[in-house]
Amino acid sequence: MNGEERFTDLPEDLQEAVLQKARAGKRAARSLGILTTDDKNEALSAMADSLWQQRDAILAANRQDILQARESGIPEAKIDRLLLNEKRLQDMTEGLRQIIALPDPIGETLETIRRPDGLAIEKVRVPFGVIAMVYESRPNVTVDAAGLALKTGNAVLLRGGKEALQSNRALVAALQAGLQQTRVPQESIQLIDRTERETVDLLIRAKGLVDLAIPRGGAGLIQRVVENALVPVIETGVGNCHVYVDETADFAMAIQIVLNSKTQRPSVCNATETLLVHEGIADDFLSGMVRALADKGVEIRGCRRTREIVERIDARVRAATEEDWATEFLDLILAVKVVPDVEAAIEHIDRYGTKHSEAIVTENRQAADRFLAQVDAAAVYHNASTRFTDGFEFGFGAEIGISTQKLHARGPMGLRELTSYKYMIRGTGQIRE
Amino acid sequence: MNGEERFTDLPEDLQEAVLQKARAGKRAARSLGILTTDDKNEALSAMADSLWQQRDAILAANRQDILQARESGIPEAKIDRLLLNEKRLQDMTEGLRQIIALPDPIGETLETIRRPDGLAIEKVRVPFGVIAMVYESRPNVTVDAAGLALKTGNAVLLRGGKEALQSNRALVAALQAGLQQTRVPQESIQLIDRTERETVDLLIRAKGLVDLAIPRGGAGLIQRVVENALVPVIETGVGNCHVYVDETADFAMAIQIVLNSKTQRPSVCNATETLLVHEGIADDFLSGMVRALADKGVEIRGCRRTREIVERIDARVRAATEEDWATEFLDLILAVKVVPDVEAAIEHIDRYGTKHSEAIVTENRQAADRFLAQVDAAAVYHNASTRFTDGFEFGFGAEIGISTQKLHARGPMGLRELTSYKYMIRGTGQIRE
Repeated sequence: MNGEERFTDLPEDLQEAVLQKARAGKRAARSLGILTTDDKNEALSAMADSLWQQRDAILAANRQDILQARESGIPEAKIDRLLLNEKRLQDMTEGLRQIIALPDPIGETLETIRRPDGLAIEKVRVPFGVIAMVYESRPNVTVDAAGLALKTGNAVLLRGGKEALQSNRALVAALQAGLQQTRVPQESIQLIDRTERETVDLLIRAKGLVDLAIPRGGAGLIQRVVENALVPVIETGVGNCHVYVDETADFAMAIQIVLNSKTQRPSVCNATETLLVHEGIADDFLSGMVRALADKGVEIRGCRRTREIVERIDARVRAATEEDWATEFLDLILAVKVVPDVEAAIEHIDRYGTKHSEAIVTENRQAADRFLAQVDAAAVYHNASTRFTDGFEFGFGAEIGISTQKLHARGPMGLRELTSYKYMIRGTGQIRE
Repeated sequence: MNGEERFTDLPEDLQEAVLQKARAGKRAARSLGILTTDDKNEALSAMADSLWQQRDAILAANRQDILQARESGIPEAKIDRLLLNEKRLQDMTEGLRQIIALPDPIGETLETIRRPDGLAIEKVRVPFGVIAMVYESRPNVTVDAAGLALKTGNAVLLRGGKEALQSNRALVAALQAGLQQTRVPQESIQLIDRTERETVDLLIRAKGLVDLAIPRGGAGLIQRVVENALVPVIETGVGNCHVYVDETADFAMAIQIVLNSKTQRPSVCNATETLLVHEGIADDFLSGMVRALADKGVEIRGCRRTREIVERIDARVRAATEEDWATEFLDLILAVKVVPDVEAAIEHIDRYGTKHSEAIVTENRQAADRFLAQVDAAAVYHNASTRFTDGFEFGFGAEIGISTQKLHARGPMGLRELTSYKYMIRGTGQIRE
């Protein structure tokens, strides 16, 4: 139970390196969990100041990562995610200052139960303890996660991607330097700076030391974590999202919603990947829709009925494969299927969706209610874009990720989703009869 | 994502048997999740009636299990847990009727967010979908779990122990017969009646079909589930609980609390296994405490200091081993340790506890507050017995188990803990800028 289990399949020195930080994190969490809101806010402010003071060192470290990435032939789109500049650093410090302004959820009384025998039971919000974040190339996750964890009284173990190692080292050094003048222990924020794949396995098996693991990244990373974890996990982010355009949809509205859901930022998890269209309006609607999509450079992969319609208007379309229905393209590609009714749309989503964000466009309130009730996803939309599934868009003021599981947290996760609770019971000698 | 993954290490016919029920459960969950409270209550009532009508068949089936258990040499304490009689059956039907009286959590609006652009975001409580219960010999879990799952709109897959197979078959047949006259599909309650160990593995790997697994039973079962699950799990029930008697404790109160925590029902998870005593009062307190424990037939396993004190009063004591501190005895055995202060007590609990129930007895409010704040457990008590950690004692009116993890649910789990939520967003064509 004390997290000291060793694994014979993993190198001993690596285990010691990870466990040592996990133990230090656990010790830090104990004092961090009972600090006041003022103490934590002061630390967040010091972290922001320190980041900005150390900007030269951080940007120099980032240039090393970028150089290394170019030499390894990493594609430019990915290099852009890795890149830091003064503007991006300023955004990070701004993000930390915004967290200061958010209410502190820790210590909140969620419920008070007074029992007939006089026992006073209080359900109180508490930190998890130690959170392991496992993520990929974006260095801003390092700072976001550190800030959100700190505000919620959690120690955090950061395991970023290999490509961002120098940047993450510099960022965490700056954050820790900021903590030095405060009451928050430095070990509240630690980087796992060994980037062997096995360090992920060690973190997610460290039962008794790590209270929660949050993987953020592609489907491969998330699956690896879910399959190997012994500690509780919140799955995030894989979004095979759909827009269903119903028989009674307002066409102009539907076109705007589909365009926005697909093209406003195709590389993110709440972008739409498949368009479902009611057969009663497929001819009329798809003609206009496909032209609008073509103008935005979107490639269409259609079912047979879709292809007949699209080819009639001389637009280009490929045949959608079984795999296409299940794929999160994260690109300007849209799968399109004509379905007989809302029930068939729901069934398609049930089969291929990832429980992230799903939308119906309809003027029929009954169809909308049915879709919202029966589609099993974190966020279900009537007449709005799937792109709104986001902690900031929901007004949480922060986001650590978007959960696609149903346990604990669903959809955008803000500060409250990084907390647990405990029951504090005060008595005067009560015993059970 | 659709749960049709096959595992080459498991027999194909077994996989088909389990997956077929899981698929049927998923179909049932979809309609069950949107039934009205009246529909569900009517079904619960029909289930209770049917159980009672079929009592002869159920008791006959139970006699087969008992006979078999005796032949296999299963100890009488375990046979008692397996045993059904008219009284116990009546208690089960009473339990179902009590669930009818509880408020239906499904459909509850947890939060309403109105965004500046007019988007209306509603956070609504929904069922998980399909819950797999994995448990051991008590047949009452079959009926309790079926009733709680039904009230919360969840389909349930019941995987009870081998020893209770005939009883469980008869119970589930009766429950399903009850559903026949109602709007609730029979497949909402299904027994996995193959009791090979592999059926557990199949249930907990059925991603896309099973939304949540709840193991209930001994440490071995729970560890097996946690280590092999691909679906979300709530860990339950292992309780290595402590009572810490502080320097300023009221001795009479402390003796009553320790006796109650240890002896009122030693075989359950919220019974206390270790007593920690402040060194300043160890001599005085332990003399009286040990005599009271001896009167109740409790075996003492003490640290060196404890042994010196106990031996001086001619009572019997064994030396506590490292293993004793970590053991959930579930028996009339108590480990006893003298500690220098509350901080040392907290550290001992942190090292050996299972995050279940922990108590401090003290007249010092500051020591109490410190203990309640810093001990990381589901339920932390000041001047009360650990035995109160229980859904009924907390006033929930029901209990599916006691969670010892921090994700989603902590401590006693009632109806609300069997639910998730989703965001329903209604717009008028909003797109993201």
